Amino acid sequence: MMSVLIKGGKVVNADQSIYADVYCEDGKIVAIGQNLSVPEDAEQIDANGKLVMPGGIDPHTHMQLPFMGTVASEDFYSGTAAGLAGGTTMIIDFVIPSPQQSLMEAYNTWKDWASRSVADYSFHVAVTWWDDSVYQDMETLVKEEGVNSFKHFMAYKNAIMAEDETLVNSFNRCLELGAMPTVHAENGELVDHLQKKLLAAGLTGPEAHPLSRPTEVEGEAANRAIRIAQSLGVPLYLVHVSCKEAVDEIARARHEGQRVYGEVLAGHLELDDSVYRQNDWAAAAAHVMSPPFRPKGHQEVLWKALQGGTLQTTATDHCCFCADQKAMGKDDFSKIPNGTAGIEDRMMIMWDSGVNKGRLSEQEFVAVTSTNSAKIFNLYPQKGCIVEGADADIVIWDPAKTHTLSAETHHQNIDFNIFEGRTVTGAPHITISQGKVVFKDGELFVTEGAGRYIKRPAFPSIFEAVKKYNEVNAPTAVVR
Amino acid sequence: MMSVLIKGGKVVNADQSIYADVYCEDGKIVAIGQNLSVPEDAEQIDANGKLVMPGGIDPHTHMQLPFMGTVASEDFYSGTAAGLAGGTTMIIDFVIPSPQQSLMEAYNTWKDWASRSVADYSFHVAVTWWDDSVYQDMETLVKEEGVNSFKHFMAYKNAIMAEDETLVNSFNRCLELGAMPTVHAENGELVDHLQKKLLAAGLTGPEAHPLSRPTEVEGEAANRAIRIAQSLGVPLYLVHVSCKEAVDEIARARHEGQRVYGEVLAGHLELDDSVYRQNDWAAAAAHVMSPPFRPKGHQEVLWKALQGGTLQTTATDHCCFCADQKAMGKDDFSKIPNGTAGIEDRMMIMWDSGVNKGRLSEQEFVAVTSTNSAKIFNLYPQKGCIVEGADADIVIWDPAKTHTLSAETHHQNIDFNIFEGRTVTGAPHITISQGKVVFKDGELFVTEGAGRYIKRPAFPSIFEAVKKYNEVNAPTAVVR
Amino acid sequence: MMSVLIKGGKVVNADQSIYADVYCEDGKIVAIGQNLSVPEDAEQIDANGKLVMPGGIDPHTHMQLPFMGTVASEDFYSGTAAGLAGGTTMIIDFVIPSPQQSLMEAYNTWKDWASRSVADYSFHVAVTWWDDSVYQDMETLVKEEGVNSFKHFMAYKNAIMAEDETLVNSFNRCLELGAMPTVHAENGELVDHLQKKLLAAGLTGPEAHPLSRPTEVEGEAANRAIRIAQSLGVPLYLVHVSCKEAVDEIARARHEGQRVYGEVLAGHLELDDSVYRQNDWAAAAAHVMSPPFRPKGHQEVLWKALQGGTLQTTATDHCCFCADQKAMGKDDFSKIPNGTAGIEDRMMIMWDSGVNKGRLSEQEFVAVTSTNSAKIFNLYPQKGCIVEGADADIVIWDPAKTHTLSAETHHQNIDFNIFEGRTVTGAPHITISQGKVVFKDGELFVTEGAGRYIKRPAFPSIFEAVKKYNEVNAPTAVVR
Amino acid sequence: MMSVLIKGGKVVNADQSIYADVYCEDGKIVAIGQNLSVPEDAEQIDANGKLVMPGGIDPHTHMQLPFMGTVASEDFYSGTAAGLAGGTTMIIDFVIPSPQQSLMEAYNTWKDWASRSVADYSFHVAVTWWDDSVYQDMETLVKEEGVNSFKHFMAYKNAIMAEDETLVNSFNRCLELGAMPTVHAENGELVDHLQKKLLAAGLTGPEAHPLSRPTEVEGEAANRAIRIAQSLGVPLYLVHVSCKEAVDEIARARHEGQRVYGEVLAGHLELDDSVYRQNDWAAAAAHVMSPPFRPKGHQEVLWKALQGGTLQTTATDHCCFCADQKAMGKDDFSKIPNGTAGIEDRMMIMWDSGVNKGRLSEQEFVAVTSTNSAKIFNLYPQKGCIVEGADADIVIWDPAKTHTLSAETHHQNIDFNIFEGRTVTGAPHITISQGKVVFKDGELFVTEGAGRYIKRPAFPSIFEAVKKYNEVNAPTAVVR
Repeated sequence: MMSVLIKGGKVVNADQSIYADVYCEDGKIVAIGQNLSVPEDAEQIDANGKLVMPGGIDPHTHMQLPFMGTVASEDFYSGTAAGLAGGTTMIIDFVIPSPQQSLMEAYNTWKDWASRSVADYSFHVAVTWWDDSVYQDMETLVKEEGVNSFKHFMAYKNAIMAEDETLVNSFNRCLELGAMPTVHAENGELVDHLQKKLLAAGLTGPEAHPLSRPTEVEGEAANRAIRIAQSLGVPLYLVHVSCKEAVDEIARARHEGQRVYGEVLAGHLELDDSVYRQNDWAAAAAHVMSPPFRPKGHQEVLWKALQGGTLQTTATDHCCFCADQKAMGKDDFSKIPNGTAGIEDRMMIMWDSGVNKGRLSEQEFVAVTSTNSAKIFNLYPQKGCIVEGADADIVIWDPAKTHTLSAETHHQNIDFNIFEGRTVTGAPHITISQGKVVFKDGELFVTEGAGRYIKRPAFPSIFEAVKKYNEVNAPTAVVR
Repeated sequence: MMSVLIKGGKVVNADQSIYADVYCEDGKIVAIGQNLSVPEDAEQIDANGKLVMPGGIDPHTHMQLPFMGTVASEDFYSGTAAGLAGGTTMIIDFVIPSPQQSLMEAYNTWKDWASRSVADYSFHVAVTWWDDSVYQDMETLVKEEGVNSFKHFMAYKNAIMAEDETLVNSFNRCLELGAMPTVHAENGELVDHLQKKLLAAGLTGPEAHPLSRPTEVEGEAANRAIRIAQSLGVPLYLVHVSCKEAVDEIARARHEGQRVYGEVLAGHLELDDSVYRQNDWAAAAAHVMSPPFRPKGHQEVLWKALQGGTLQTTATDHCCFCADQKAMGKDDFSKIPNGTAGIEDRMMIMWDSGVNKGRLSEQEFVAVTSTNSAKIFNLYPQKGCIVEGADADIVIWDPAKTHTLSAETHHQNIDFNIFEGRTVTGAPHITISQGKVVFKDGELFVTEGAGRYIKRPAFPSIFEAVKKYNEVNAPTAVVR
Repeated sequence: MMSVLIKGGKVVNADQSIYADVYCEDGKIVAIGQNLSVPEDAEQIDANGKLVMPGGIDPHTHMQLPFMGTVASEDFYSGTAAGLAGGTTMIIDFVIPSPQQSLMEAYNTWKDWASRSVADYSFHVAVTWWDDSVYQDMETLVKEEGVNSFKHFMAYKNAIMAEDETLVNSFNRCLELGAMPTVHAENGELVDHLQKKLLAAGLTGPEAHPLSRPTEVEGEAANRAIRIAQSLGVPLYLVHVSCKEAVDEIARARHEGQRVYGEVLAGHLELDDSVYRQNDWAAAAAHVMSPPFRPKGHQEVLWKALQGGTLQTTATDHCCFCADQKAMGKDDFSKIPNGTAGIEDRMMIMWDSGVNKGRLSEQEFVAVTSTNSAKIFNLYPQKGCIVEGADADIVIWDPAKTHTLSAETHHQNIDFNIFEGRTVTGAPHITISQGKVVFKDGELFVTEGAGRYIKRPAFPSIFEAVKKYNEVNAPTAVVR
Repeated sequence: MMSVLIKGGKVVNADQSIYADVYCEDGKIVAIGQNLSVPEDAEQIDANGKLVMPGGIDPHTHMQLPFMGTVASEDFYSGTAAGLAGGTTMIIDFVIPSPQQSLMEAYNTWKDWASRSVADYSFHVAVTWWDDSVYQDMETLVKEEGVNSFKHFMAYKNAIMAEDETLVNSFNRCLELGAMPTVHAENGELVDHLQKKLLAAGLTGPEAHPLSRPTEVEGEAANRAIRIAQSLGVPLYLVHVSCKEAVDEIARARHEGQRVYGEVLAGHLELDDSVYRQNDWAAAAAHVMSPPFRPKGHQEVLWKALQGGTLQTTATDHCCFCADQKAMGKDDFSKIPNGTAGIEDRMMIMWDSGVNKGRLSEQEFVAVTSTNSAKIFNLYPQKGCIVEGADADIVIWDPAKTHTLSAETHHQNIDFNIFEGRTVTGAPHITISQGKVVFKDGELFVTEGAGRYIKRPAFPSIFEAVKKYNEVNAPTAVVR
């Protein structure tokens, strides 16, 4: 039996903070309080001056994703390990079937890949096309496999882009099944048009990348997805919201009572689009991801939206491509594999720029790095909180520790760090996964395959109100 | 030589009002002032106590349109005559090619139909599909035929709906040619989905019509068109804006400096969706048009948007179908031909609900019924104002005259009036077209074919700033 | 020892719902789970098919308030009892010093009155004027008396209205002390002006009441308070937000990251201003409160704001005046004592119009009726949740029970019910206060003076981020 | 008889541009067209390649204003001359009575000062306090003196700040008289508080000036004035709108149909608040004006608001203080006399940053520099357009001419130019005032006292709709 006693720390949950010891056994939190009676052989951890918080949940990663003619360099083993080093104890990755590929087939492929994970994981499944088999597979995934969220790419025309007809069909199906539809909101038609126009004008470098996907392109798609969800009466989650235009749409919808949720990436909160105009092609290309980093000003808008509750979750869209892979787009920016890393950095960035700058309280930090994702994707209270009965996925945070983010030292399997050289204050002291210490003093103690696939039940509580609302407001015929 | 002297009236233009006589000769206004010296045989009109205003321009009509399996009952002859009876002296109708039909062919067909008109007219041309011939024909239409505006239907899936790819291509082409793109903003994919869902649920009557096209469906399309226009740097005009959602999008865009214009129909300003739930099927069906009349509350939003300048023009979407035609949708609301009348009623409605209620000044009345359309569609100052040199298209308005709107008495070739029984105060006393009295004491004096096709030059002044802006802000490459 | 076991219910908290038994002892919840071992003599309550929820907190009541020349008919004894009958187990009432009256003196007066309460209570203290003694008393109240919120009336000119200078001084002081400033947002200058104008125009009846306080008057004050709070860097709570104008201001501020909170009354969610134009003077006058009930349309805006998180709490502004008191304004609407009842009705209205209509989930119902108030006013987790260690203030809710709201049957000490005759589904089955059953089968079992004054500590967690933010963003001088 | 023929130019009005000659006689424009027959001795001006536009109107200047313990260095003689050198042919200055000073007395003082003007002028009169004499004097000013606008300072506490009660009374009076109320929108209470706080914190330099008047302080006051105007049913004009917060309030109000107008200064469009942090105290102090220049980002918001019609007019708030005057605030930024120059620079800035950058068309340039002010303040069509009968106040603009703005060369009586060293393209070639060439080839030909006081009639057309609206929507009593 594996047991751990965390003593003397301040336990911070999304709803309150208390000074208490936390005792874990067999992968679960079993007691919280003062003077707990625990087995003599329990491992004791001194958390004096530290914060004991739910491990981070990264609801948006792409480990070993086959994409744009190559495969992401970070696999489930190295990626989940890097997460633990950064205090993140669970990921939700994406199964992305090719158009015409069976959802179940893709799902099984991904499950196989993910079995090497060292921390817990789950999957969103992408709907990239539509026919009856997709309709059927969605049910199987929800009812038998514990998938309760489906992703839709509104960009990547001629590849994985979902047409409006697919969006409508799939959103509808999500509503029936009690699963959350999610979207990557960029208008793929406009991106395609602008890419061609820029290339034709001789703009082939990474500086053209953000110009081919201006903020209005995201604003448009965000609005479209929200309006489709509204007309169907289904909740919606927007991944990697990166700009004022999209944030404003979400705010409007929420303010009008619509059940819409938004995620923001650490990178979008901190970096601006000047990175694409640097002289070093490789460095510029290393920042190519979609949506791109945005003009100065959008970052503060995102922070404020997070403070105000317009956005609820933070993620990374962790998708690693090394310099040789990025070089595929040497002569054509539209061929640079899209993606940046961050799973190890996110919690530290959020603390340093969030809590240290007075944008977020400690409790809000927990909410946006862990609890809210757990609630929205129906993992709560198994994940996302320090309560008796929860999984013992814990990060013991040292608010005084400084750490310099760098590709030289990070555990991420990529040769670049978009936060290179930044020294943060506040970092993981110890990470505990399934009740075991897996990261301590900068060292990882992980086991390949120790991570478990976590099923997520359908019909999170938000669907309770939504279904009732649809029922109460169902249209009626006039009897003539 | 035809000459007319209008004496003693208050001349009201969009920018000012003065008391002056107006003298017209050979179809033109040639002098404005006091004590004008005119030929002895000039016809003299006493305008004491009356307002002398530019004749109305209706920028949105569909005379004898083949649509949904039938043909609109009002033709160019009867329709333009009804317009004159209501003080409207010019229309801009729509050439609507079928998908795959040549634009020039359709244009020629419509020109032929329109040659019977009794008042001046012009054409918007719809782009319902895309290939190289469309690209070429747009140039011919602009440079040789005086067409400076192209229409795009975002609704009517599997019929005349333009896909996003067509919108992008055509908007771009408009920018090159100096022509205004216009859109009917409703998401056709959602309409199609909702129609099927409602029919499946047993809602087959006209009450299902507004439910199949809720306001968010228009809001979505309005936003999409605006965002596409923004990313391409092209102005945009939205026809028949009917709801808060669309109005808000236009306001936002304008407030951010985008060149976006909006039109509102007299019907949408006055009627609400309760008309669809009346027991009389025929009466309910008679109101079926798209976008539908909206829930109570939207009307006041539209009025305020007109007051505040978010919307600039008023129109009718005059498209007549009689009871026997409407009956085609007896068992399926989605088959009821879409359209309502109003060309004769618009000016009176705008006066009675606008000026009499203190929403609009007299000058603003002129702006929204005539001048603004003339400016946006580059007819100004030939049309839309009472100035020396302008066409003598004039309405002499009696603000004290009462008139009851009714299918019994109207000149419109349709057996229904959506304003049936409403008595307004303020109506045309005399209408003058091309310098001739064509309506007086309730009687029409029109000549078939007297109406002229009016060419509208490309590049209205708004394009001057737009082109400069695009040029100044053109993207540049990083030299590495 | 008093002990109660609630068996078989669904325990609903703001963050999750579980099926579990709840055991209470000595006024506290001591165990939650299955198969709890409890003393044999514990009272057992069968909660099968029922919901076990935190008792309601009403953060806005005025028991026995001296106001407008009379005294509210409901005292602390009867008022807290009526609350228990409706499932509300705690109130936060208002100490309202007269201008120039010492805050401590007023506070002591109110504490004395409140000692007869049958349920727990706390106080906001109003700042109606300013001098050094007020500055000092605020500190005493916060540090010694457990007051962590101060109220400011922006209306009631020449009475308790706080001038802008007072608002600025008091908000600043709140920030120093870690207390929440709250405002009644109506522009008192405009109200005064409009009252006089209406009376001068011969409008003396209750129908003039809403006209003297139109929604823009609230919108203005809401914005002013929010902007003052913004420029000082202090959080803000707006009581009884009643209209779109104010809701929009809060939404904007929150969206921009400002820490602003809003409360809505059950009455404002349900009633519109047509009540003031009924022929029965007494019935019209019975609805006179400020802000008044609003034109149709605002109610839905409020509901949506509650759904979307723009508003967080629900209250009643319970302030009772009987018909003979209302009659004081027989000839002058501005003399009708302002106030309506609702403490007993609120939870049932919120359930019936909220949960039953699909606007709120069960968990959201708990949040807006109890948890959010507990968090904002720093009572959490002592109040506002069903967790081990919390006060045993519990309502056992029967979602199937129907109940008709009426002055004939309610426990409120007032001869009128603004929800008269409405039958709701969903009502308290049993209310437990401090671990004792105090309401069951429609009967109250209360003890005068059993209610305790609850101190609320300063510096709720939100101040942690706010103080840090102000510190990080403090202005700096240029060294020249 | 003085006569001038301007040949070969492009005549640009707000509503259209035409190539035509313009003939002026006795101070009036008497003919526009081709091949005009004019007296042989008429002065002929070759305007080939030039634009013939209405002379600029600056609706916001403060010549020789006694303020903050000193007097503005620019008097009416030098100031109006500098205006002519920049193409501005008319100003509207401000009569500012001290609190308790008679409005008529102040008005007469200013009229006396202004009699030395070399170009036409008019006056807004400030209402800084309230009693019956103010009420009476307003009527005298409107009916006898041709004043149709009254100004209200919401800032400058303990000096000229108008309390809310004064705002309400004066706005109401404006409505009765058909005069436009205008406001300087900054919350004086907050400014006072922040000034003291900053000084107490040791921030005494010019960098504290913008910190004492952050944008929310303007946003608050703008909203307050707009809401007061709304509740009274009176139009409103906001002077020197400088930030997003205020712009957003105006946009909202206009969008909701309220008659609200906004003015922006050339300085606010171009400069940001970094000017206050420069090391050179004198240069920093030279930029001190209120509202201050704003953080980067606000400038683009203002430009877009001007493009979109949210703002209508441009001005300068021309109020000159030289270095020795600015030095009065050496140790206390709050004592630096507030004001900057610009009357000579405005038109060139607007052309170079507006037209040359594609933000404004030529017609829009005319609208925002001249026509819109003429319309709003009821000078149109006497001023603000090139039409027969209008005053011959004309600027012949050379779009190709370059000019460097500098205190070395400008005609303004101040030792500093906030646009120092900026070279613009597009400048006045010739300025004509009252039909005489007064500026040519960089040289002024002016006559002291040649300027005339221009009366402005009450009840511009906007009041027509407003009065009707108030009448139609007047409250009614319930008969019981």
